[in-house]
Formats: sequence, C-alpha cells, structure tokens
Amino acid sequence: MKEVKLKSYDNTWYNPGGLPKRVLWYACNRLFIKTSIPFPTKFKIILLRAFGAKVGKGLIIKPGVSIKYPWFLEISDHVWIGENVWIDNLSSVFIGSNVCISQGAMLLCGNHNYKSPEFDLITKKITLEEGVWIGARGIVCPGVICRNHSVLGVGSVATSELESYRIYMGNPAKNIRERVIS
Amino acid sequence: MKEVKLKSYDNTWYNPGGLPKRVLWYACNRLFIKTSIPFPTKFKIILLRAFGAKVGKGLIIKPGVSIKYPWFLEISDHVWIGENVWIDNLSSVFIGSNVCISQGAMLLCGNHNYKSPEFDLITKKITLEEGVWIGARGIVCPGVICRNHSVLGVGSVATSELESYRIYMGNPAKNIRERVIS
Amino acid sequence: MKEVKLKSYDNTWYNPGGLPKRVLWYACNRLFIKTSIPFPTKFKIILLRAFGAKVGKGLIIKPGVSIKYPWFLEISDHVWIGENVWIDNLSSVFIGSNVCISQGAMLLCGNHNYKSPEFDLITKKITLEEGVWIGARGIVCPGVICRNHSVLGVGSVATSELESYRIYMGNPAKNIRERVIS
Repeated sequence: MKEVKLKSYDNTWYNPGGLPKRVLWYACNRLFIKTSIPFPTKFKIILLRAFGAKVGKGLIIKPGVSIKYPWFLEISDHVWIGENVWIDNLSSVFIGSNVCISQGAMLLCGNHNYKSPEFDLITKKITLEEGVWIGARGIVCPGVICRNHSVLGVGSVATSELESYRIYMGNPAKNIRERVIS
Repeated sequence: MKEVKLKSYDNTWYNPGGLPKRVLWYACNRLFIKTSIPFPTKFKIILLRAFGAKVGKGLIIKPGVSIKYPWFLEISDHVWIGENVWIDNLSSVFIGSNVCISQGAMLLCGNHNYKSPEFDLITKKITLEEGVWIGARGIVCPGVICRNHSVLGVGSVATSELESYRIYMGNPAKNIRERVIS
Repeated sequence: MKEVKLKSYDNTWYNPGGLPKRVLWYACNRLFIKTSIPFPTKFKIILLRAFGAKVGKGLIIKPGVSIKYPWFLEISDHVWIGENVWIDNLSSVFIGSNVCISQGAMLLCGNHNYKSPEFDLITKKITLEEGVWIGARGIVCPGVICRNHSVLGVGSVATSELESYRIYMGNPAKNIRERVIS
C-alpha cells in the first residue's frame, strides 16, 4: 500500500489573501474578537467589515470567538455567535438570518485528501441557511449545507447535508426527528 | 412551517443576579479561575464563597476552569474539577461528594425552545450525585441528573438521567455496563 | 455497593519528573507553545528538546498547542500538530513519521480506576504510527495504538486499537472503511 509523505505536501495553489492582511487580521482576531474582554458587538462588526466580512443587522458575538478569514464570511440578519465558537473558514462560510451558533461550536472548512500520498488540502464552503441552530460544541464539516431551520444537537458532528426542519444528533449526526415550530 | 425570529427573543424574565455582581465575577473568573496561572485552590475557594458558592472541604480546581455564576453553584466534599472544565451554570449546579469532573468537560444549563419562533431561553438544573465521574470532554446537558457513582465516558454527551453505578458512552450517551467498585 | 472516596486517593507513586522542571516547563508551555503568538516552530523545537523531547525533522506546530511533559514525547519526521491540540501526556506519547494531528485534537494518557474506591491513577502510553491522521477535535484515549495510516474522524473518540489503513468514526470510534492511498 502507498504511504503518506507530508514532505511532498504542496498548498502553494491555495491563496487565501495577502500575507500582510492575514497577519494583521490574526492580531486583530486575537486582541479584539477571541479575547475574553467583552468588546461591544458594534466594534467587532466594524472590524469584521473592515476586513471584508459581509455582516447584516442584529448580530451578537460573544467573547472567545475565533474567525480565520473574515473576507470569506457572510452573515445575514439577527445571527447569534456564542462563546468560544471557532469559525475555521479556510473558504466561504455563509450564515443565514436567525441562525444561532451555540458556545464552543466549530465550523470546519478545511480537509485533506487522505487517499493521496501528498495529503492535499481541500477547502469547502459551509452554508447555514435561515433559522439553523448549531448546538453547543457541535461541529460542521467541510462542504456541509445545513438547510433552513435544521438543528445540530449538542456535541454532534454534521458530515453531510442536514435537511430543513429536521433535528440531527450524534457522530456522524443522524436525522432523529422533525422540528415543529408552532 | 413557522420560522424562528431571533429579533423577537425575549429573556427579560431571566434575572441571574445584579449587573455589577455579574461584571465583577466575569473579571474575577477570567483573572483568577480561568487563567493558566495556578493560583492556590484555597484562594479560588475564598473567591467562590465570596460570590455566593457553597463549597465543601477538599476541593481541587485546576487551571483554565470557567464558572458562569458561582452563586448558582453548590459543591460538596472532596470534589475534583479538572483543567479547562466549563461550568456554564445559567441555573443551579449541584456537585455531590467525591465527584470528579475531568479535563475539558462541560456542564451546560442553558437551552432554547427550538419549537418556538421566539427561541425562548430554557435553563435547567444539573445534579451530579455522590461519586460521579464525568470523563474528559464529556458534556452534561440541561436538566440532567447523574445518579450516584454513574460514569460518563470520554467525549460523551449525557442528554438524560444516568442511573447509579452505570457507565455511559456515546452521543447521546448510552448505558453500556455496570460500575462495580470492589 | 462500595463507594469512591477521593480523600484516600494516593498518587505518590507517580513521579513524572522533578518539581522545578515541571514548574519551569508549565511556564514555558504557556508562554511559548500554548500562546496565540506564532513563535517560529524552530524556536519551539529548541525548547522541546531542551526539556527532553525527541523531535525529528520537518515538524510543524501551530499556536495554542499544549504539551504536558515534553520529556515523555517522541516525534518522528514530518509531523504536523494543529492549532489547540492538547497532548496531555502523563506518560509516553510516540508520534511516527508523517502523522497529522488536526486542530483541537486531544491525546489523553491519564485514566482512573473507576472500579476502585481509591480511584487510582492509571497512565498509559499512546502510539501514533506512521501516516496516521487524527481529525479535528478527535480524542485518543490512554493506551491506544493507532496503527500505520489509520484515520480517526472529526470529533471521534479512539478507545481501542485502530487497525492500519482503516478509517474510524464515532464515539466510541468504529471501523467504517478502508483507507486506499493511490
């Protein structure tokens, strides 16, 4: 069987933005977003927009949040991002209106081709449609679309599409019941 | 189907304590409890008691622990709280004697009514009875009672009552075998 | 049924190294390894070696990594350790060549004898053979051997040996398919 050779890994094709911008954002993310100091959400939004994020109205961001590349982030209206949420968006993340991402959850856009000796980097967009709830410490995997009003349970791992108005639980997350809103 | 409107969310009924007290505790938690600096447990206990926690004898708290509201926390004798444990106690947490909460575990008291367009906040008490062990990175969900000497496995998610002297594993955690102490 | 008495816990037999060394490493780990400041990997390697770690060539360590005792750590060539990886090596951890440990993963060497009233400490070696990939937020439990080119999925928990060239997912992690590298 063939073997992985990380020495031959080559991600030079991947260009997520200029180095100065990335370094500057890394510092801003650490100092003003990921920090425990509860800076006003308004200030965080100004910062995110300055770095290219599209942000709607009514956003709430708690302390301890980490965002990899704001220029790959689009947030609609009335979104909540809980404490210590990790948006590891090596590629685009779209967050629809009325989405709640609870504390400690993770949006993971980066993957590796484990079938290749070069372990090639793969990045895929994540989409959270309107009214989605990602439970505390839930993980959304690269390329996953959470259809409108789907729910990912606490500590669960979404590896493929979540259907709308359905509740998922487990690792990998399974469709366990309907979400009836009344 | 109806939709969630986070704009109409209303948690004004929820009053977890006066604002000055909460702000002061937020700072103390960050500076003296959640910090990597290993302040003596004795000092941490004085602080917790000053903010209304009931703390028995023999407590050990490692660095990196986060406690939301100490005035909602009751800890019996000879309890261990491991590194980076997150006690997100929006409501009461009771920890019985000889309980061990291992590193990275989370006690989660807050939930939302996902069946309501207003996504109402729901807070529920967590009870860990005597001799319970919450494994590393385990998560205890709102309202769960872990009966005496039950065990939640590494990375597992307790969504409903754990029976006494039983071991649970998985997400959601399932009863897998008896805990025989001899 | 018998009860756990944490008061009678006795780990005096466990001697992971002299106190001054452990205190000094604790500070170095926090200031230079676990920090968000992206110190060059070269500097981190000098530090790890100074504290007794065996480190091969081509190592990459991202920010936020935590290593308990570097003198219990052996890393072969071309290894990647991702952001916020937690190597809680109360005993030996061996990491083979071309291993990737993704962001937020945890290697857990410490356990307790939950069948004993004294809750005795148990520490067991972890071995990651060549070409292994531990996915983001995956957890490897004490004593586990991940055979060469095995893969632990995102958020999964390895509680027993992973066979070579097999992919595991879930909690506890189950063998779900072959890893074919071509």
